[in-house]
Amino acid sequence: MTKPVETAAWEPRYAARAERMRASEIRELLKVLDQPGVISFAGGIPDPVLFPVKQAQEAYVSVLADPATAGSGLQYSTSEGYLPLRQWIVRHMGGIGVPCHEDNVVITSGSQQALEFLGRLLLSPGDTALVTAPTYLGALQAFSAYEPRYDELRPEDGNCTPASYAEAARQGGGEVKFAYVVPSFANPTGETLSPVARARLLDLAAELDFPIIEDAAYASLRFEGEAFPPIQALEIARGGSIDRARTIYCGTFSKVLSPGLRVGWIVAAKPVIRRLVLVKQASDLNSATVNQMVMHRMAVAAFDHQVAQACEHYRARRDWMLAALARHMPEGVSWTKPQGGLFTWVRLPEECDAERLLERSLDEAGVAFVPGSAFFFDGRGRNTLRLSFSLPGEEEIDRGIALLARLVGEAAQVPPTPPSRRCGR
Amino acid sequence: MTKPVETAAWEPRYAARAERMRASEIRELLKVLDQPGVISFAGGIPDPVLFPVKQAQEAYVSVLADPATAGSGLQYSTSEGYLPLRQWIVRHMGGIGVPCHEDNVVITSGSQQALEFLGRLLLSPGDTALVTAPTYLGALQAFSAYEPRYDELRPEDGNCTPASYAEAARQGGGEVKFAYVVPSFANPTGETLSPVARARLLDLAAELDFPIIEDAAYASLRFEGEAFPPIQALEIARGGSIDRARTIYCGTFSKVLSPGLRVGWIVAAKPVIRRLVLVKQASDLNSATVNQMVMHRMAVAAFDHQVAQACEHYRARRDWMLAALARHMPEGVSWTKPQGGLFTWVRLPEECDAERLLERSLDEAGVAFVPGSAFFFDGRGRNTLRLSFSLPGEEEIDRGIALLARLVGEAAQVPPTPPSRRCGR
Repeated sequence: MTKPVETAAWEPRYAARAERMRASEIRELLKVLDQPGVISFAGGIPDPVLFPVKQAQEAYVSVLADPATAGSGLQYSTSEGYLPLRQWIVRHMGGIGVPCHEDNVVITSGSQQALEFLGRLLLSPGDTALVTAPTYLGALQAFSAYEPRYDELRPEDGNCTPASYAEAARQGGGEVKFAYVVPSFANPTGETLSPVARARLLDLAAELDFPIIEDAAYASLRFEGEAFPPIQALEIARGGSIDRARTIYCGTFSKVLSPGLRVGWIVAAKPVIRRLVLVKQASDLNSATVNQMVMHRMAVAAFDHQVAQACEHYRARRDWMLAALARHMPEGVSWTKPQGGLFTWVRLPEECDAERLLERSLDEAGVAFVPGSAFFFDGRGRNTLRLSFSLPGEEEIDRGIALLARLVGEAAQVPPTPPSRRCGR
Repeated sequence: MTKPVETAAWEPRYAARAERMRASEIRELLKVLDQPGVISFAGGIPDPVLFPVKQAQEAYVSVLADPATAGSGLQYSTSEGYLPLRQWIVRHMGGIGVPCHEDNVVITSGSQQALEFLGRLLLSPGDTALVTAPTYLGALQAFSAYEPRYDELRPEDGNCTPASYAEAARQGGGEVKFAYVVPSFANPTGETLSPVARARLLDLAAELDFPIIEDAAYASLRFEGEAFPPIQALEIARGGSIDRARTIYCGTFSKVLSPGLRVGWIVAAKPVIRRLVLVKQASDLNSATVNQMVMHRMAVAAFDHQVAQACEHYRARRDWMLAALARHMPEGVSWTKPQGGLFTWVRLPEECDAERLLERSLDEAGVAFVPGSAFFFDGRGRNTLRLSFSLPGEEEIDRGIALLARLVGEAAQVPPTPPSRRCGR
């Protein structure tokens, strides 16, 4: 009576949007990469030696030792999030130029969830999302399920005119629904948008009346130099207020305190937050209550100290990485010099293919990195790659980069790859 | 230069699907309802006196005391979920007739997230979801963002023919993409599908070749009588295997151990799980790592004990509730006699309107419940209501039901409500 289901039979059952939910080759690759014996510049995860383990343990014990807080920590809670944590975030945002109120804040399960919620709330199929190229791979994954087209932002000097973005969006069958940027120490490039580029983005957003999604995941990790105000702060400084702001700010505790608790936040105008609270309710009711309470205690006790410690720790690694690149890389290779964050971005000679390089690098040298094309919405950037300096030590960095540099030198000598494998630009 | 954004200006920026993301009036109401002084039969949350606080505290301390587990607990982790927890779930599922493998399991942030993922994966706009009426409100919220139409299942005796479901779906502009049921101690009715009804659902699903989403949130909370096998177990017993099964099983630790950690799971054929892992990755990367490790320790140490304790605890409350209803309710009122779970479902005389009753009940008696129409996809059921017996004690239940019964008696005397407010059936 029951018809057996073959594996393939699931495909026609999926929604049209499932077409766009592709396995990230990179993420699949990373499972293989982060293995003992491999020198990994691949994953962009925080160094666990920095985790405030003692504070975390004390905070869990303190929440669970008091029957009242234990009862609420183990219970369902409001979709908006734990009020004292939202109040801490209000103070934090005030300190970086974003005066706001607890009703302007919703807690999310990391900033990845914030991006997914915003894609779901804003994108109809055929709408346009403006992104840089390259951009954060996880943002492309979050947005793509909602079937947008992408158009390219070049905020430093090469944005298109508002009219041409709008016209392209119309031809694509929708509107420009938002611009997404990681303005500080971006994943994957490590680069930071200048104040002029931030202002230019605000002008574009005002002209076409679309929101800017500001992903501030790495913003606290500035090693040196003066911090630029968030785009949201610049917008408010133009004479608005948070409730008149177009910018939607996505923050997270993942890079400074701990990603394993999955706590991030969104700050935006109240009407957007009210919508996002509904999205949150339908998605998972609330982020883990006990973790929000613990994160609040950890933020109060240790946020500033952790930021200082992380900056010192990653600054040394960044310096080792830049020194090793300068020491070993052949002519024709260039890279970014980030003032913060976890990444540097390498451009190889045009004829080099970073995916082929990775295969050799793993086989012959035991060195892992992420090929750059994964971060482009259109598959460009085959001669680019991302290096994370968050985990390896000085000797490992030097040895890994030396091995990689030798392979790059060899690849730059070999005949160019066939046309079908070349950079799509 | 910047155009100020007025509040109303956000509406046109949202995706078409945002139309369907409505505030749950009920959920808004619940914020007001669960207040001190109110006798609440409204929220369907577990009684915090049952939370295994000591085990939770020990588990957090043990995870965070060992540097290796602390480092991984506070770190990102795989989207599939913590392997030992998935292995525990494999054993648990084996024990209820679902032999499966760890690759058939993905961890979710509660079963609410499972429902949202399945809506996203399966529903294109205009597709049909078959649901009971009434059904779990949170499922309607999760699915509705993906713009389905709904058609009604009556698994006990009144399903439509496969051909008529299929024809209605075609006319609606799509296909029947799944049937969603809470087969054991359903939210909101407390009722349980008979083995015959379960088999009938499997026949229908086989005939039209669609998956069944089996929401087992309350399945462990059986107070008496013999447990029926899960629909997924019945399907496998028909001669298939988990990888040939159409049924997608959603489980959760929320009702037995703690909802505040947000840990649930999906068990299904491997191809579906692989897709859901991608959805998970794009949604929030992974559920809180430390909570998965803690939930694993708690499940090993305390799951069976907690089930036994919860059943005893809620059985007494169920008995008090049924006794109070029998003692106080006037003629013409009927209610379900659940063998488990947290809810009973009350049908008032046709002329009674449960929303109006709630207004009076709050104002005059300080008694809260959820009007039943919230649980119908088409707004039916205005003379129904849901009572949760999970929180109040014996005296409170008796007093609350007595007060409510008096108001019902009065409402049944008054003239019928005007046509526009009457039951839509």
